[in-house]
Amino acid sequence: MSAVGLLRQIADVGRDRARGGYSRHLATAAESDLRDWFTEQAARRGLDVETDRNGNVWAWWGAPGDDAVVTGSHLDSVPGGGAFDGPLGVASALAAVDDLLARGFAPARPLAVVVFAEEEGGRFGVPCLGSRLLTGSLDADRARGLRDADGVTLAEALTARGGDPSALGPDPERLARVGRFVELHVEQGRALDVPVGIGSTIVAHGRWRLSFTGQGNHAGTTALTDRRDPMIPAAATVLAARRAAARAADARATVGRLVPTPGGTNVIASSVDLWLDVRTPSGEPGPVVEDVLAAAREAAAAEGCTVELVRESLSGAVAFDDALAARMAAAVPGAPLLPTAAGHDAGVLAAHVPAGMLHVRNPTGVSHAPDEHAEDDDVERGVRALADVLAEPAR
Amino acid sequence: MSAVGLLRQIADVGRDRARGGYSRHLATAAESDLRDWFTEQAARRGLDVETDRNGNVWAWWGAPGDDAVVTGSHLDSVPGGGAFDGPLGVASALAAVDDLLARGFAPARPLAVVVFAEEEGGRFGVPCLGSRLLTGSLDADRARGLRDADGVTLAEALTARGGDPSALGPDPERLARVGRFVELHVEQGRALDVPVGIGSTIVAHGRWRLSFTGQGNHAGTTALTDRRDPMIPAAATVLAARRAAARAADARATVGRLVPTPGGTNVIASSVDLWLDVRTPSGEPGPVVEDVLAAAREAAAAEGCTVELVRESLSGAVAFDDALAARMAAAVPGAPLLPTAAGHDAGVLAAHVPAGMLHVRNPTGVSHAPDEHAEDDDVERGVRALADVLAEPAR
Repeated sequence: MSAVGLLRQIADVGRDRARGGYSRHLATAAESDLRDWFTEQAARRGLDVETDRNGNVWAWWGAPGDDAVVTGSHLDSVPGGGAFDGPLGVASALAAVDDLLARGFAPARPLAVVVFAEEEGGRFGVPCLGSRLLTGSLDADRARGLRDADGVTLAEALTARGGDPSALGPDPERLARVGRFVELHVEQGRALDVPVGIGSTIVAHGRWRLSFTGQGNHAGTTALTDRRDPMIPAAATVLAARRAAARAADARATVGRLVPTPGGTNVIASSVDLWLDVRTPSGEPGPVVEDVLAAAREAAAAEGCTVELVRESLSGAVAFDDALAARMAAAVPGAPLLPTAAGHDAGVLAAHVPAGMLHVRNPTGVSHAPDEHAEDDDVERGVRALADVLAEPAR
Repeated sequence: MSAVGLLRQIADVGRDRARGGYSRHLATAAESDLRDWFTEQAARRGLDVETDRNGNVWAWWGAPGDDAVVTGSHLDSVPGGGAFDGPLGVASALAAVDDLLARGFAPARPLAVVVFAEEEGGRFGVPCLGSRLLTGSLDADRARGLRDADGVTLAEALTARGGDPSALGPDPERLARVGRFVELHVEQGRALDVPVGIGSTIVAHGRWRLSFTGQGNHAGTTALTDRRDPMIPAAATVLAARRAAARAADARATVGRLVPTPGGTNVIASSVDLWLDVRTPSGEPGPVVEDVLAAAREAAAAEGCTVELVRESLSGAVAFDDALAARMAAAVPGAPLLPTAAGHDAGVLAAHVPAGMLHVRNPTGVSHAPDEHAEDDDVERGVRALADVLAEPAR
């Protein structure tokens, strides 16, 4: 079946009526349904499915073993996300298997399609949760204690769905089996004007939480001069983040999530949490974050508030494997090399195994939102390229 | 029983573990429990309890009839509110009945204790919902369509709890029975340095929702110059509200509630709603709101976003009844006359019947937050004053 046909099968899973688009988060009914769909589709292709200790799902063509060729992506979404970011890579991997089966390809070494868990960090805040746990770049105790917006820990959420949080942790034997990893993904900006591009790098990026604390009080009776309103320095920090990014070379800084507590209309907030996402193609995010933090501290002090900073994740710059990129270039002649400012499981794996990415053109230039799109023909071109790359090492 | 003892009985109802303090909202389990508690306490005192068509609960001493002396307040809270705002007035009313019973007082005309519904607008956004519906100052159709943060309408919420939303609306016969209304309330600022004060006025106040719309997108891949991020004008508007209030004479403007959609860390928001609370002791809130809106429009245009303004409520300035204030002054010699910047059901009723307020000192100066407080002795002084005022007209 075509990748587009496969995506159509899950078009109604996890729709978010309030936000628009999809909200498909770890350990929810939508995510369960998507895993069931993947398992069924893999079984139809004769692949053997197993879930690893970190909730990543692996479908094997041939017995699991060393030097495996692995492809895949993720099925979870950001809140109110699009239909392609993640699922396109999984559907394209299944479609590439169909393509290889139709070619009569017999893999000389193991081939696997993997679905990584919670790539977006949409529920528990840390992106690439499944691949970070697998590779040991996220501590299992820290992961178990991560909380969602309702205060539920990852451990509690996994237990509630019949999982075993005590199993979370590095999985070096499984990682050692991965000979190379290729992830196909919808392009997420306006950088690609041909159907398919090849990933060159992922820029350094990270997430920080800033917590402002003041004094909750009555919005009517509290004189302006008596206020310690944390919304004031939080708002100043949103604007400071934009200024700090504009000052740094090609950096991006975003506040997309901001939560005042208690959040009443007639109540001066007692605290405000906001999340700062920073990406820096040139150098590390640190200086931008320091710039924002300095502004946050100054604004907090002026209002009699305090501010605390917690780093939730940090990923250094990633350069994908040159030899793998060369093989992809042979499969898609003329495809441009693309740096990306988006994080991916392929970037996490790249520190351990040869890894690469194929990007499929996105005509809207919009991602992490319902307008995200890829044309059918471009998707088919991506699937053929992926099949070629997967087939190559075994020829 | 003392008012403080009565408050202790409900000290564990509706605690908000996430925000601190209490979240006691209309048509929730906490609010049901509080109504049950009130009904039981009223019955113990021989009062006849009835719920009116708008969900306000009336406990009658003597048969319901004309020229009634009515006291009471509300049991709902802001999100994460304190223990006194509302419940102190209800508990003090019950304690005043005890005081009058102990004095052997026999009311010559009907006396009622009333609990108004959703005074804070904590769930459905419009404050003094029950008293506004009763007096006809809020249209019943508009009320039925009000939505909470989860998109549930008031009509749906009432139906789910066995209520009848079609009954909502003006209740002129009931209103005509109210001869005078006195509300005892915890003071909500730092204006009172003696145990009890007498309400003189409520300043004009209102609530507006500003909705900023931009383009949801990826926080990493979207260049700063390509962004239409509604969080930027929303943040600018928070700061503009403070500046606008500072420019106007003794005005207050607050943004305590701000909701980005979809609210993901790695997602540029597609829209941001924020709620603006404005109170103006001198004149109407309009000019302050216009000032904020001008800044919001300018910031939205600069970011390629749009902004819409919806007025959720507006209450003109209220002057309480002079004759009733004089009677209260006789009951509490030396009590100062206090204007308040907080809205109250007494303010809504004041347009229709002689109304007044007793304020009990709040040593923290904090309200709408867990630190809100009143000392036991001050509460007892307030109850005695209330009992004297209730007894007076019948002597």
